Amino acid sequence: MTTTLHATDVHPAWLPDAAFEPVARRGAVLVVPDGAARAGVDTDEVLDALGAEIDALGPYDGEPALLLELSGGGPVEGEESFRLRRERGRLTVTAGSSRGLLHGFFHVVRLGDAAFTGPDADESHAPAAALRMLDHWDNVDVHPVMGQVERGYAGGSIFYADGRVREDLSRVRAYARLLAAVGIDRVAINNVNVHAREARLLTDDLGEVARIAAAFRPYGVRVHLSVSFAAPMTVGGLETSDPLDEDVRAWWRAAADRVWEAIPDFGGFVVKADSEGQPGPFAYGRDHADGANMLAEAVAPHGGLVHWRAFVYDHTQDWRDRSTDRARAAYDHFAPLDGRFAAEVVLQVKHGPLDFQVREPVSPVLAAMPATRLALELQVTQEYTGQQKHAVYLGTAWSEVLRWRPWGDAGASVADVVAGAGGFAAVSNVGDDRFWTGHPLAQANLYAYGRLAWDPALDPVDILDEWIDLTFPGAPDALRAGLHLILDDSWRTYELYTAPLGVGFMVRPGHHYGPDVDGYEYTPWGTYHFADRDGVGVDRTRATGTGYTGQYPEPWRDVYESLETCPDELLLFFHHVPYTHVLHSGTTVIQHVYDSRFEGVERVERMVRTWESVADLVPVDVAVRVRERLAEQLRSATEWRDQVSTYFLRKSGIPDEHGRTIY
Amino acid sequence: MTTTLHATDVHPAWLPDAAFEPVARRGAVLVVPDGAARAGVDTDEVLDALGAEIDALGPYDGEPALLLELSGGGPVEGEESFRLRRERGRLTVTAGSSRGLLHGFFHVVRLGDAAFTGPDADESHAPAAALRMLDHWDNVDVHPVMGQVERGYAGGSIFYADGRVREDLSRVRAYARLLAAVGIDRVAINNVNVHAREARLLTDDLGEVARIAAAFRPYGVRVHLSVSFAAPMTVGGLETSDPLDEDVRAWWRAAADRVWEAIPDFGGFVVKADSEGQPGPFAYGRDHADGANMLAEAVAPHGGLVHWRAFVYDHTQDWRDRSTDRARAAYDHFAPLDGRFAAEVVLQVKHGPLDFQVREPVSPVLAAMPATRLALELQVTQEYTGQQKHAVYLGTAWSEVLRWRPWGDAGASVADVVAGAGGFAAVSNVGDDRFWTGHPLAQANLYAYGRLAWDPALDPVDILDEWIDLTFPGAPDALRAGLHLILDDSWRTYELYTAPLGVGFMVRPGHHYGPDVDGYEYTPWGTYHFADRDGVGVDRTRATGTGYTGQYPEPWRDVYESLETCPDELLLFFHHVPYTHVLHSGTTVIQHVYDSRFEGVERVERMVRTWESVADLVPVDVAVRVRERLAEQLRSATEWRDQVSTYFLRKSGIPDEHGRTIY
Repeated sequence: MTTTLHATDVHPAWLPDAAFEPVARRGAVLVVPDGAARAGVDTDEVLDALGAEIDALGPYDGEPALLLELSGGGPVEGEESFRLRRERGRLTVTAGSSRGLLHGFFHVVRLGDAAFTGPDADESHAPAAALRMLDHWDNVDVHPVMGQVERGYAGGSIFYADGRVREDLSRVRAYARLLAAVGIDRVAINNVNVHAREARLLTDDLGEVARIAAAFRPYGVRVHLSVSFAAPMTVGGLETSDPLDEDVRAWWRAAADRVWEAIPDFGGFVVKADSEGQPGPFAYGRDHADGANMLAEAVAPHGGLVHWRAFVYDHTQDWRDRSTDRARAAYDHFAPLDGRFAAEVVLQVKHGPLDFQVREPVSPVLAAMPATRLALELQVTQEYTGQQKHAVYLGTAWSEVLRWRPWGDAGASVADVVAGAGGFAAVSNVGDDRFWTGHPLAQANLYAYGRLAWDPALDPVDILDEWIDLTFPGAPDALRAGLHLILDDSWRTYELYTAPLGVGFMVRPGHHYGPDVDGYEYTPWGTYHFADRDGVGVDRTRATGTGYTGQYPEPWRDVYESLETCPDELLLFFHHVPYTHVLHSGTTVIQHVYDSRFEGVERVERMVRTWESVADLVPVDVAVRVRERLAEQLRSATEWRDQVSTYFLRKSGIPDEHGRTIY
Repeated sequence: MTTTLHATDVHPAWLPDAAFEPVARRGAVLVVPDGAARAGVDTDEVLDALGAEIDALGPYDGEPALLLELSGGGPVEGEESFRLRRERGRLTVTAGSSRGLLHGFFHVVRLGDAAFTGPDADESHAPAAALRMLDHWDNVDVHPVMGQVERGYAGGSIFYADGRVREDLSRVRAYARLLAAVGIDRVAINNVNVHAREARLLTDDLGEVARIAAAFRPYGVRVHLSVSFAAPMTVGGLETSDPLDEDVRAWWRAAADRVWEAIPDFGGFVVKADSEGQPGPFAYGRDHADGANMLAEAVAPHGGLVHWRAFVYDHTQDWRDRSTDRARAAYDHFAPLDGRFAAEVVLQVKHGPLDFQVREPVSPVLAAMPATRLALELQVTQEYTGQQKHAVYLGTAWSEVLRWRPWGDAGASVADVVAGAGGFAAVSNVGDDRFWTGHPLAQANLYAYGRLAWDPALDPVDILDEWIDLTFPGAPDALRAGLHLILDDSWRTYELYTAPLGVGFMVRPGHHYGPDVDGYEYTPWGTYHFADRDGVGVDRTRATGTGYTGQYPEPWRDVYESLETCPDELLLFFHHVPYTHVLHSGTTVIQHVYDSRFEGVERVERMVRTWESVADLVPVDVAVRVRERLAEQLRSATEWRDQVSTYFLRKSGIPDEHGRTIY
């Protein structure tokens, strides 16, 4: 395990050659019965890729132990399931579609030796949800403020360079392969904030988009485009974007026709409308169902989708006005529209009511729209969770969201809500960085996202084991234990040293890295904590606050409403309390602020020590990069501890019970 | 007074045609005795420009009442004085140099009718200081964060567009004329933060710089360049910039030789070294005298200057460390070097110890370096004083600095300190905006800077009258009164609604516009207020604080040291006091915070009403632009009032005595 990779090589992530060794050692064969591979937009190419994967395993003498068989009936549109039978150490994977077969192949790779050594079995596998997408917030041009990849922490875009689509898309193909190996099957390739240059992807640059789609296609990944609601005006030259205007509708239909002509397996459009300055239907007195359904009409003939984001709120609110509550916005805008969206519309809902904070309650929108196709939006890129400078494993956080039951223990979970025709969308954390994700350990987040989107019931710690097995083949126990020590609880660690008790934000405005307790306090963004000399927190109760608790069904509307029952970790999200308020944990709010900040830093110090104890068990480039990032995490965590503690000591005047240094 | 100018016209500022009418009506003639115009680098061109000015007055029948005469002895290098004699309504201006004659001509224009109607007189005029420079922080390329003009609030650069020097420099010539009319005679044409593109001005682009110099030359204005201390490495290809290295010294000598060969009347170099990330002599264990003297050696043969900035401090300090005091830095770095700088070096010292805040004490460096040539650095561009969105007349602020006497009433003033061979440098507020300065009333600041640099004894309110007479010829009394109501006390008004009692900053980090009380509180920039629930302010006393008061001579070292004698307006700059501390004014600190914020906004409301009462007395384009800016000033002042008041109410818990709304 001391291989030194050349600095110019791209790190293989969870698909190093060694990960295929258990299959290669036993041999594999692809069987495609005559007539099975019906002519289709991608079937042949997926089968070609699968064939190439098997060829790459190397020649095998004797009878292969893995048989991959496309079943005779021909591929079924959208069908991704596969059947796996194990009989005395021999595996047969069958599927009705090339994509299903691809999933089955990578399933076997993931299992490694265990795929072959288990007892005889006959299993069926299928994804829990149809839609498992990654959103890239990549710009073609480098944005003067946001850079090339908005909220990207892994270098430039893998799609674009020098103001256009890259000539060499081999990196995109490698990415498609990584995604296929974890079950992600859709990628939106440009920023939801669609700037002028990026708007042309839909028109002049369709040929270039087709090239990207071709790089993804062999691994069964479909391409989507983010589009601007104002495109009929900005690129179409019309005088309106009114969704009920017939010329506008015709323009979108024609635009969709052109896209699908160029890319027959194109996925659809992603739209951020009436959000943070982006254009939308409100300008014409229309609602978001009007807007989304207009696009649905355009994509419907092609079997396409419209991912419509529910991230709509007033980003120019007055901090003096405590009655406006950003947390309420998505529900207030969208819940009344339930049942009005066309079948092609997927409403993409952020997991929490604010914006990917380290701790938020689950968005009540997810429980309010039973007649709407919903996608849960997660953020793999660590905008508010350490920006891939901090090791923060998000699988545990997402799993908590997925397992949460809006209607109480007897009701459905969030995973159930988005299952079936709905699904997942998540902001990618990938760039042209050699490790794909800047922080090598942040690869685990991309991996976990794909796996949870396929099967939300998976244990996030088990997913880490899968990832370790693939990424560090033959990992010694010490390495495995070290990685678990560092990652298992790292989300909670990050929470400990940053904003306390669910209050959120307290980050530097703009870039969102590092602490600034009052950074957003007097801004128009609606992200406040209202700390004064007596207390802190946002009163979102029905009794005395903004009424946000009323957006939840029973039992949560009452659990969150009451100080007696509100969970500690969300206390300041729902309530404004004195610093001396005693938590369920038995400590006061102010003492919790100090204790958790100090504990968070101590945990990071342990992470640093743990890494030093295992770093020589990984390739030196990984060892060095992780060491460098952990040093920054420790510096930053210390800064968080000191700023937050100092801020609240200066404000409350209540000293730390343990007499630690606060400035 | 209802002339509508075309939107594409450039506003004439203080030189509208009508300003010349009192001279034109009486006629003027230029007399250059044979042999007087000795061949010189700029003499002839200045005389040509002066001749053109007189031609532009139009034909005059009869005996002209203004005689401009170059005296016979030929021009004296650097001589700018002129003599003015009035005899029964006829004026004779004589000067020993073309520049002196130009100053005399614009002196007469400024006086208007009064120049001719006064009693007989015989006066000599000369500038108080030799150096009266404007620094442009213009970039050739548009900087991704700072834009084209760093801290510029008046559009793009008048020198550069599209990544190079503009083809059409007629705007530069018009600028030179405006400057000549107020006595400014030197302009540094690029940002003191010298980026890669701008570094080439010194080498490849010298021909372009020569074109700019040619545009300035007819009006007697010399061009300077900001240079990077690292230029021997970054553009010269050497391996060091060590100022004691002979190759480095030779490189600078050769660079200077090339510059003066291209531009014989070139002014010299401006250097920001070891400051906010710019390279400097510290990297080689050398001090700033070593660095500056190396450049002095290079410019000396050409009669050039080195403007070396004293703005050196640690911009990566730890907010936890209260012993480091940014205010001390310039003195600590430079006072020990007094007497070591070469004659060509002009040490450029910001007026206060921090950074152009609305209220600072005067920099003690100005009283600590009797053996050094000093230039007082002011900021005409309103970085911290409203960014040309707020009407803030800075003449009063600068006058206070100039009249301040570091050694007490019997000693010299700041104006005395920089008189003679020293002088003034100020950051320009000009861009390619139609009004030159964004806010039309901000033209008054540029005007006042030039006039105060020529004669620091001028009353800043009288200067406003001059400016009104020229800019709004024939201004009715109501307009004059309105402009005085708006501008005379506007600096104090801005102080009233922004950071209180000299504590400074409290602005949004980065762009520096608008309030953010804790914006810099936990940053590395050394700009803190240390507000907690009990009090606020920075203890800079010798007794218990950073010892900064000890940098002043008597009496100020003791005046500032004592709470009894420290002026209210600087209280929080020098002392950390409880909110209940009673000011000399009789009110408490906390009540002062509230009262002054509310008074500031009321004053802005009066400014708005005043403008509405006089707006139809000015050209409509001026009326509209000022109205728009005043609306923003009122919005911003209200935001300042509410944020600062709310911040301190939340922290102190002490309510406003008058029960006004605080959030």
